[in-house]
Amino acid sequence: MLQQRLADIKSKRETARPLPLGSAPFTSSSHFKIRQSGYTNKANRWDHRFSLESRNQHVSSLKSAARAIGPSDMISLGTARPSPQYFPWKSIVMHGQEYNDGTSNYPLIPPTSAVGCKGEEAYDLSVALNYGYAAGFPQVLRFVTEHVELIHSPQYEDWETCLTCGSTSAIDMAFRIFCDLGDWILVEAHTYPGAMSTAKSQRLHILGVDMDDDGLLPDDLDLKLRTWDESDGPKPGVVYMIPSGQNPTGVTQSTERRKAIYRMAEQHDLYIIEDDPYYYHQLQIATNTTQPPMDQYLIQLPVSYLSLDTSGRVLRLDSTSKILSPGLRCGWMTGCSQVVEKFLHATEVSTSAPSGASQLMMYKLLDESWGHEGFINWLMYLSIQYSHRRDTLIRACERYLPSDICQWGVPDIGMFVWMRLNVQNHPRFVENIDSERLEGIGLDLENRIYEQARQYGVLVSKGSWFAVDRVAPGVVHLRVTFVAAPEHLLEQAIERLGNAIRTEFTYVIESPACHPVSRQETAAPRDWPKTLPLSPGSCGSPTDSRFADCRHPDSVTTGSL
Amino acid sequence: MLQQRLADIKSKRETARPLPLGSAPFTSSSHFKIRQSGYTNKANRWDHRFSLESRNQHVSSLKSAARAIGPSDMISLGTARPSPQYFPWKSIVMHGQEYNDGTSNYPLIPPTSAVGCKGEEAYDLSVALNYGYAAGFPQVLRFVTEHVELIHSPQYEDWETCLTCGSTSAIDMAFRIFCDLGDWILVEAHTYPGAMSTAKSQRLHILGVDMDDDGLLPDDLDLKLRTWDESDGPKPGVVYMIPSGQNPTGVTQSTERRKAIYRMAEQHDLYIIEDDPYYYHQLQIATNTTQPPMDQYLIQLPVSYLSLDTSGRVLRLDSTSKILSPGLRCGWMTGCSQVVEKFLHATEVSTSAPSGASQLMMYKLLDESWGHEGFINWLMYLSIQYSHRRDTLIRACERYLPSDICQWGVPDIGMFVWMRLNVQNHPRFVENIDSERLEGIGLDLENRIYEQARQYGVLVSKGSWFAVDRVAPGVVHLRVTFVAAPEHLLEQAIERLGNAIRTEFTYVIESPACHPVSRQETAAPRDWPKTLPLSPGSCGSPTDSRFADCRHPDSVTTGSL
Repeated sequence: MLQQRLADIKSKRETARPLPLGSAPFTSSSHFKIRQSGYTNKANRWDHRFSLESRNQHVSSLKSAARAIGPSDMISLGTARPSPQYFPWKSIVMHGQEYNDGTSNYPLIPPTSAVGCKGEEAYDLSVALNYGYAAGFPQVLRFVTEHVELIHSPQYEDWETCLTCGSTSAIDMAFRIFCDLGDWILVEAHTYPGAMSTAKSQRLHILGVDMDDDGLLPDDLDLKLRTWDESDGPKPGVVYMIPSGQNPTGVTQSTERRKAIYRMAEQHDLYIIEDDPYYYHQLQIATNTTQPPMDQYLIQLPVSYLSLDTSGRVLRLDSTSKILSPGLRCGWMTGCSQVVEKFLHATEVSTSAPSGASQLMMYKLLDESWGHEGFINWLMYLSIQYSHRRDTLIRACERYLPSDICQWGVPDIGMFVWMRLNVQNHPRFVENIDSERLEGIGLDLENRIYEQARQYGVLVSKGSWFAVDRVAPGVVHLRVTFVAAPEHLLEQAIERLGNAIRTEFTYVIESPACHPVSRQETAAPRDWPKTLPLSPGSCGSPTDSRFADCRHPDSVTTGSL
Repeated sequence: MLQQRLADIKSKRETARPLPLGSAPFTSSSHFKIRQSGYTNKANRWDHRFSLESRNQHVSSLKSAARAIGPSDMISLGTARPSPQYFPWKSIVMHGQEYNDGTSNYPLIPPTSAVGCKGEEAYDLSVALNYGYAAGFPQVLRFVTEHVELIHSPQYEDWETCLTCGSTSAIDMAFRIFCDLGDWILVEAHTYPGAMSTAKSQRLHILGVDMDDDGLLPDDLDLKLRTWDESDGPKPGVVYMIPSGQNPTGVTQSTERRKAIYRMAEQHDLYIIEDDPYYYHQLQIATNTTQPPMDQYLIQLPVSYLSLDTSGRVLRLDSTSKILSPGLRCGWMTGCSQVVEKFLHATEVSTSAPSGASQLMMYKLLDESWGHEGFINWLMYLSIQYSHRRDTLIRACERYLPSDICQWGVPDIGMFVWMRLNVQNHPRFVENIDSERLEGIGLDLENRIYEQARQYGVLVSKGSWFAVDRVAPGVVHLRVTFVAAPEHLLEQAIERLGNAIRTEFTYVIESPACHPVSRQETAAPRDWPKTLPLSPGSCGSPTDSRFADCRHPDSVTTGSL
């Protein structure tokens, strides 16, 4: 299957015209799509979903049109684009990392070497360091478009891909394209705080939709939309979701669940933003099949909303942060051309284009060194690495965490293990079960566990940071990730977490100071360090900044949670 | 003078603590300022100028605070920042361009070589390709802060510098920070279309302030603000200016003019956005002085608004596009800390940070290879190159352009020559002097000249693209730049332009088809190509896209004009 599709790409490239070069070359993914015909329909019109700001914006491709016209020896006194002779870099040489998964189940890619020198190749520094077009340089956009088609095979005719300056930037622009001040957007009940901060920053309202072990619940989505009270504002027109290895819950929506949600979106004319940075991290690749390993990897990838979409109602965001590196600040998005056009115009009047240096790095690695097969191989390699890490972490959880207090799911995809801490038997909780302070005590307990963990030398993420609405009393969640720490320290980290949790619960049960305290006292307990029997570190003064981030998901720095 | 200041920077660095490393390291320009005391005042408060959106946004530095606390062997299961072992690049090696100005008036910098390898140096790929902090990596921010202080010596205590994702992105954010929907901003009567597009995109209104040969007129600024009619909306609180080598007029505001405008801003409590991408391109460096060449270069640089500012009312934007390369998409801004904080928050919820690849390139070149002296030397080199180009272009104008039709100023700074074409004697104009069509005919003539030039093989920019308001009848401007074309073709380009202008005027005078035509006919003349006696190319069909961009500055792609 893969080999046939790769052959199609190769043959398309061989018959294509040379890619445009020069400064800010106009390009479009439509030049690079393999399947050019045989679609049964185009996307719906989306004008009614565009914000007032976005309706006011129009793409111009005139400059690029202008460039193509006139005598071939045209001399430009027009745009003030400095001649590349005044770029101070002469060459950049990159070497790729050697990697080896130790199983040799599939071909390894040799260490790569890539060079970008002025005049040496077509897409050189004089192009990459010049002004870029909003959709990306054609050399990078071609690869990305082919990759999107290889993985998702969009079903409607006028789908389009373009580069982004990272998914946070793309989310910011997508919200501005679809939402006016005061509008509501729908999200999963727990979600990425960066997306919430971006929405709040634009003064949008956020409504969480309930979830279960298969992710967002279509029935709750339906209920919330069917019973929408227009006095709260216009009925939401956009849902933002992380369907695979969801942040923070780690759940992956099943194909059936996705189809049900998509049907609901059709019914309520809801536009879908599919934010999918963890898509490629499969933590359980079947090896006992007759399929070649890469085919098997591709078969097991989730069915994306993009691939289900027939109406052009999905904007899919792909990130390089978790598969290449976050410092690139360059990802890609795919949706219907109407929406991509709005995005390009928004880009032209703000970020202009992703960094040429980042694009050059992507091109040299992805296209010139790896090719599509090498890229998929890298994604498989990462998946295998991460599945080892997940297994290590889960084994440690089983060994070190108190099973009467902690429960967790085992993710199939992504980077996160979501833990539920049973605090309903916690004495502090029981004592307050009829009190008005109960909700505050839930947050207090979460904070105490978080701080205790920190004292024991392990950093986790508080569940409340990801909660859209108030957290129900008695529910405390932690999110832990197995991708950041050195692999050999994962077990120790969980051991520390187990000790921290036991200490916290022991303390409350045994300490003479275990009477319920007010929130203020909890946040800055003056005599806490002295009475804490098992804590490995001291707890600081009342003004200690350790206590500053216990209150609200708003107060969390975004961009990388 | 320069040597003493460089010694101050060196000594400050030697006694400073090591720069933070790791993922998204918190940093601030306040760590890098040389002058730490002796300021007489802090910036005014600017809360009353912030937009509703911006008042809603607050920076959080909690994550960075969190990082510093706890046991030294803390293990992170917290943020999902992939371990750098999964970045696929192993090393990047850069070589700087050799350059030689041929005069040997000042020391040349040898070709540079820079390496960024994992583990090889402190600021390596594992840091640069990781998540970055919104203000930039400390390694880059340190250099830029030192440079800003070296050049501008800000006078109030709480000035701050941070990186941007390029000046267009910074303009977008600055407008959002200061302006609400429907607000007015003040700009020079002719200005950068990119800034206008950005403002219009946010549905702001733009008001042009009259200019003379010294730039924006303080009296007109005063008049417009004194007589402001509140029924048109709130009185403008922001003025956007390009004070040096202005785009498109090429004028540089004198120091006296700047002081007068600043006084007016103080009087009307106007916030100033100083967009200064052409600042360093001095086209006439005095050589017959006793000053060392670099000192002389620095002395001759314009007095920036930032250096005049005592109230913190200036946000200065610096671009790398015209001095290093546009593909970096990375510049810097300087203003009071209140405004920079707003900017950092806006960055966190959109672009996140400039590309790490771009920052690495800047660091390796500016800090590790060149140092401050080398950077200034490069800026001098560019200035000398551009002054040769300007001289070549101006000589060609004197030789090839019809002096009865064309007038131009000779710029002291920047990239642009602004030409006024005397079309008042043009028969088409004279015939219509009493007609209601006069204004349209002005635009028609501009378009015809532009198209004629294109037929002759030279691309120029239409003056109307830069006009904020309607262009007065009888005034046609062209903007030409001497930085884009190969230097040896500049003379030929102007010769072609002269021939095009002569042809256009001759055609109108001599052609049997010179009767006044309606606008529609002009936009798509069916038989024009056949009757054009001197045109070197054909003119296309009525649907030819060549005719598409003759109408309005709105329709121009922005980002690089």
